[in-house]
Amino acid sequence: MRVAILAHEKFPDGAKTAVGVIRYGDQDVVAVLDREAAGTTVDEHLPDVDCDAPVVERAADAPEFDALLIGIAPIGGGFEESWRPDVRHAIESGADVVAGLHYFLNDDEELSELAAEHGVELHDVRNPPDDLTVADGVARDLDCEIVLTVGTDCSTGKMTTALEIVDAAREAGLDAGFIPTGQTGIMIAGWGIPIDRTISDFTNGAVERMLRQKADEHDYLVVEGQGSLFHPAYSAVTCGILHGAMADSLVLCHDPGRETIGGYESFPIPDPAEAVDLYETVGSAIAPTRVVGGAVNTYGMEADAAAETVEAYGEAIGVPATDPVRYGADDIVSEL
Amino acid sequence: MRVAILAHEKFPDGAKTAVGVIRYGDQDVVAVLDREAAGTTVDEHLPDVDCDAPVVERAADAPEFDALLIGIAPIGGGFEESWRPDVRHAIESGADVVAGLHYFLNDDEELSELAAEHGVELHDVRNPPDDLTVADGVARDLDCEIVLTVGTDCSTGKMTTALEIVDAAREAGLDAGFIPTGQTGIMIAGWGIPIDRTISDFTNGAVERMLRQKADEHDYLVVEGQGSLFHPAYSAVTCGILHGAMADSLVLCHDPGRETIGGYESFPIPDPAEAVDLYETVGSAIAPTRVVGGAVNTYGMEADAAAETVEAYGEAIGVPATDPVRYGADDIVSEL
Repeated sequence: MRVAILAHEKFPDGAKTAVGVIRYGDQDVVAVLDREAAGTTVDEHLPDVDCDAPVVERAADAPEFDALLIGIAPIGGGFEESWRPDVRHAIESGADVVAGLHYFLNDDEELSELAAEHGVELHDVRNPPDDLTVADGVARDLDCEIVLTVGTDCSTGKMTTALEIVDAAREAGLDAGFIPTGQTGIMIAGWGIPIDRTISDFTNGAVERMLRQKADEHDYLVVEGQGSLFHPAYSAVTCGILHGAMADSLVLCHDPGRETIGGYESFPIPDPAEAVDLYETVGSAIAPTRVVGGAVNTYGMEADAAAETVEAYGEAIGVPATDPVRYGADDIVSEL
Repeated sequence: MRVAILAHEKFPDGAKTAVGVIRYGDQDVVAVLDREAAGTTVDEHLPDVDCDAPVVERAADAPEFDALLIGIAPIGGGFEESWRPDVRHAIESGADVVAGLHYFLNDDEELSELAAEHGVELHDVRNPPDDLTVADGVARDLDCEIVLTVGTDCSTGKMTTALEIVDAAREAGLDAGFIPTGQTGIMIAGWGIPIDRTISDFTNGAVERMLRQKADEHDYLVVEGQGSLFHPAYSAVTCGILHGAMADSLVLCHDPGRETIGGYESFPIPDPAEAVDLYETVGSAIAPTRVVGGAVNTYGMEADAAAETVEAYGEAIGVPATDPVRYGADDIVSEL
């Protein structure tokens, strides 16, 4: 599928979704829309990716594409009116539009009418299916190994680590699939359920449903975790994923530069060894699980400092550790 | 407020909500509607309650009332068409209607039009407010003691125990309030948020909102727990309540007659001492908490067996225990 990715004024540093799709998605990225960076190419901004697609000012300047992805998420999750001409152009040229906004494109009268008229789909990936149910408690019986990324906080690299594990597993000749649980992961994978938007009674069940759907297709399923059991607001989501997935193996993701939970300054980041204990204890209350590896974010560190940080982290939690973005995830895959 | 309670063909044993409102609610129950038990009085069925209201065949036979409560919940949560004449009569006589069904009365065209015409409200208590938000993480800072009932499974008496603690606390001269989290608790209290129907990201926040709303009115707030951390389907809800409430004290509810999780026969009921450890560990990951008492269900046992069961349970978990329905909750209140 050929995609154009809208990332106006934010590419690449403020466009997590766009960069995630370029780096990990199977889609063919034909253009990025950013009116400030127009005239450059993607690999000028992301030297480590193999993508020389143009950055263009507007959808009309892009090569032909099958879907327009909204690759940025403004605070509040609203739809920026300045994007409308690009979305309109995409629809009128027969392309679907995929968005992870709180504002649903399908609720926008002009866009939904235009989409109907042109026979294209508007995918609001933050809108979970309306036929979710409670879990049956069967994930542990599925005929595949399940791996789940967990964390000491939100935004500690759980999605990236899961995707790097899938990549490393495939390179090692293993048949691994990615189970997305958040809007960026869903846009990268092209399918999935936004677990943080499900009805709380169905949270475990929504994770279980995705695993059942993919268990026959792969030997390993790597689930993108969300939140943290140490998070005062998001722990329900984390617990639902932990128990819905019944993972054989957990990978603990940690940002060593942080001292308190993001946005909750009176709550300390837990000691990573304590986090290992809590995830293993809570997970094993439903199905036996253990932490087999650690992922740590060394972004911005010099090479020596990064290597020391990874080593110290591995010693602290007693299992192999890596920075999957810097070093890959081979050391974790070899533990599976 | 004068209420009539609809419980056709189910009063009292199949009408948990009706009995809960009669036993614990502040409402003035003027009639129960049960076409099979018509001609009797409430206290003929529930000898321990002080309520001689008539059981009548239809709403038209009841004394004047301000609200009709649907006091039964059929499997599936649907609306039985045989109730429609009673609901219609209630609306036409100017009474509100309160229901905890999955089927929302407000979505019923005839009933919602009739309600608008007569200026009465239809309250669907399973429908959470649409302006919920993530938790701010402040429940531990509220100027009151918070108590939460937790359990080794669903349906182990968490609502009843919370209500009995509130009653015993008030009798001991303490100012205690009840925080309802499920449809029956909400119908008893006349307010509340159905925590199992919230969006998962807002689960912790919905509990926190209720506590903030009531913290200035009471010295003790007793939160009705839901589900179990050992439940493969409902643990997300349980974790959200545990962390949203940040309770100072927990009370562990247990049914000694059960060996496996209800409806999940391959998952054993945890050892109660193990459950104490898990709830204290998980709760304290956010705010320090401890189990101060236990509630055990001895329904149907002879007096001797009940006393032995309570004693053995207290010894197993290392804190005072009771069957709050049989013996009251004074022993728990004295620990607060």
